[in-house]
Amino acid sequence: MSSDTKAPVPSESLRVELGERSYSIIIGSGVLAAVGAQVRGLCGPGRVAVVTNPTVGKLYLSRVSDSLRSAGCEVVTVEIPDGEEHKNLASLGSIYDRLLAAGFERRSPVVALGGGVVGDVTGFAAATLLRGVPFVQVPTTLLAQVDSSVGGKTGINHATGKNLIGAFYQPQLVLADLETLKTLPRRQFLSGLAEVIKYGLILDAGFFALLEQQLDRVLALDMDLLRQLVRRSCELKALVVRRDERESDYRAILNFGHTLGHAVENLTEYKRFSHGEAVSIGMAFAAAFSAVRGYCGREVMQRTITLLQRAGLPVDLPPELLGERLARAVAGDKKAASGKVKFVCLAGLGATRFEHVSSEEIADVAAQWCAGRV
Amino acid sequence: MSSDTKAPVPSESLRVELGERSYSIIIGSGVLAAVGAQVRGLCGPGRVAVVTNPTVGKLYLSRVSDSLRSAGCEVVTVEIPDGEEHKNLASLGSIYDRLLAAGFERRSPVVALGGGVVGDVTGFAAATLLRGVPFVQVPTTLLAQVDSSVGGKTGINHATGKNLIGAFYQPQLVLADLETLKTLPRRQFLSGLAEVIKYGLILDAGFFALLEQQLDRVLALDMDLLRQLVRRSCELKALVVRRDERESDYRAILNFGHTLGHAVENLTEYKRFSHGEAVSIGMAFAAAFSAVRGYCGREVMQRTITLLQRAGLPVDLPPELLGERLARAVAGDKKAASGKVKFVCLAGLGATRFEHVSSEEIADVAAQWCAGRV
Repeated sequence: MSSDTKAPVPSESLRVELGERSYSIIIGSGVLAAVGAQVRGLCGPGRVAVVTNPTVGKLYLSRVSDSLRSAGCEVVTVEIPDGEEHKNLASLGSIYDRLLAAGFERRSPVVALGGGVVGDVTGFAAATLLRGVPFVQVPTTLLAQVDSSVGGKTGINHATGKNLIGAFYQPQLVLADLETLKTLPRRQFLSGLAEVIKYGLILDAGFFALLEQQLDRVLALDMDLLRQLVRRSCELKALVVRRDERESDYRAILNFGHTLGHAVENLTEYKRFSHGEAVSIGMAFAAAFSAVRGYCGREVMQRTITLLQRAGLPVDLPPELLGERLARAVAGDKKAASGKVKFVCLAGLGATRFEHVSSEEIADVAAQWCAGRV
Repeated sequence: MSSDTKAPVPSESLRVELGERSYSIIIGSGVLAAVGAQVRGLCGPGRVAVVTNPTVGKLYLSRVSDSLRSAGCEVVTVEIPDGEEHKNLASLGSIYDRLLAAGFERRSPVVALGGGVVGDVTGFAAATLLRGVPFVQVPTTLLAQVDSSVGGKTGINHATGKNLIGAFYQPQLVLADLETLKTLPRRQFLSGLAEVIKYGLILDAGFFALLEQQLDRVLALDMDLLRQLVRRSCELKALVVRRDERESDYRAILNFGHTLGHAVENLTEYKRFSHGEAVSIGMAFAAAFSAVRGYCGREVMQRTITLLQRAGLPVDLPPELLGERLARAVAGDKKAASGKVKFVCLAGLGATRFEHVSSEEIADVAAQWCAGRV
């Protein structure tokens, strides 16, 4: 028996307080082996679905299924194809078909084992199957552990844009196994790290400073430090979500770096940059924009860019994207309202302010920034 | 100008109290002409979608669109095919496609103009488009006015059963125009009347007695009386939904007559009986079951059956449905849990009690009932 199938090593638990929708996030090394006991404790015995993709399934599905079966659950597994292009109505339909054919009932939990795509599609299926069944997340990427774990955003893409169809639906439990980060491709790990850096930038200067100091240990996958990072990221996001669960206003600070990031992803057809890489470029730009407007000092911009670069993340906007098409792509973002974009700026390290900016102005400052005039 | 395009005659407004999800139901003759002013008052000017089907569209779409345009809204119309068989993922996808292509934003309202199918699919689209856009219901059938108007159940069917995919999503406004009942096919009107009778049976003996006394006026489409009926039905349903919005427990009393009703619809492939007709048979049976068990007197069963029959609704279970297949169909109902069905019984006129009954026992009592031994 490998050590992974033993009881998990001591793990941390974090409570996301959302009234009757409150839930716990368990973070630790080896917690995959505890999925069965946890799900059983939450929902009792009976049918459980595990949705994953072939890549993650090959690595971890048997461990999770074994844990569930040992706890007395009957496991139904569903694989959806790997990749953002399968975050669509077809994958959703295949989950519905499989679970309804298996006789799922309202209290039968659905477990998402994988990264953001698996989590988002599965969460949306759980939100809408029988108008809502228990949802358990087992995020296996850093991005999913620090981002999708908290906030309840679920959904799928549409031909006209990403995440345009979905629901707010909170999981009943999240189990984040840090060991899975060891099998994560480096580029995906760094993509998640971009979001970790974002939390420091917008909410916690001390956390940002910790990242500056300990970046080498992070990049070396130091498990203790990763536990701190995932925990603090979830805590910070939970504070935001608790204040504004449905993104009426304040929650939009989490879109820091995403306005330009989404435009960059869109213009490069989601091929050239990962989400985190595009957000890294977007954050560098947003820091520069904030400095140009005088909302924060130039040293904040500089520290932002330096940390992102040290983390191996891109910060430069490809010059060929500049101009009117960038303005159009920025305006196409779904958070746009009446021509102006609600743009998240830094008001210092760990602090934000919203500015309503026209997409043309964003494109203009981007051109100046690219030309080194910022 | 016809009188229909004038300002509406005095109408009643009912508030459904659900905290931050509270909304108003406006009930009256000619309120279709007020859709524009109401939607504009709620969401401001801008894009508005109206989803309907060809049958209802031909009768009322221009009136609603004109009203919206007069109020300064830009109208995008979507037609989905008529009929329960189109309450599916394909119709949902066509609404997503049309509205996203038209550049819908988070605050753009979606209006459902039609009966239950249009309301359920459109409500689910509104619940999930951009993770939720404002939803306005303009129900044009009696069933939709007294049932779908309150409760926030939205969704679509699946090959394995009805309403298996969906969301709880409250409208921001409901406008019920009683004039639309004049163009409603008689059989559909009576189908809605079955649900009206249900509210009296399970919640309000006085309302049931009013229906007994005034049935002839109801059947003659007396507008004043219909306004009372729609209003009281919505009020009664709202009391239930307010106590248990997400059907954790108590709300299931609204399934009175539906356990057997769904089984009958299912076994006759949704062709022989309308929903209300099947529910009528189910209610007659549930009253008989309750009398057999001694939960209510036989006179309650008799008054139930008499009123349903006077309303032109069927009360007899087709004998060819009896036996094991009936038991299986009852067990297949999605409210089933662990083999037993949560069966809603009458504990007198206007009062209910839940009983956990095996589907076999329901089939047995149904056989006795058919044989006239109840």
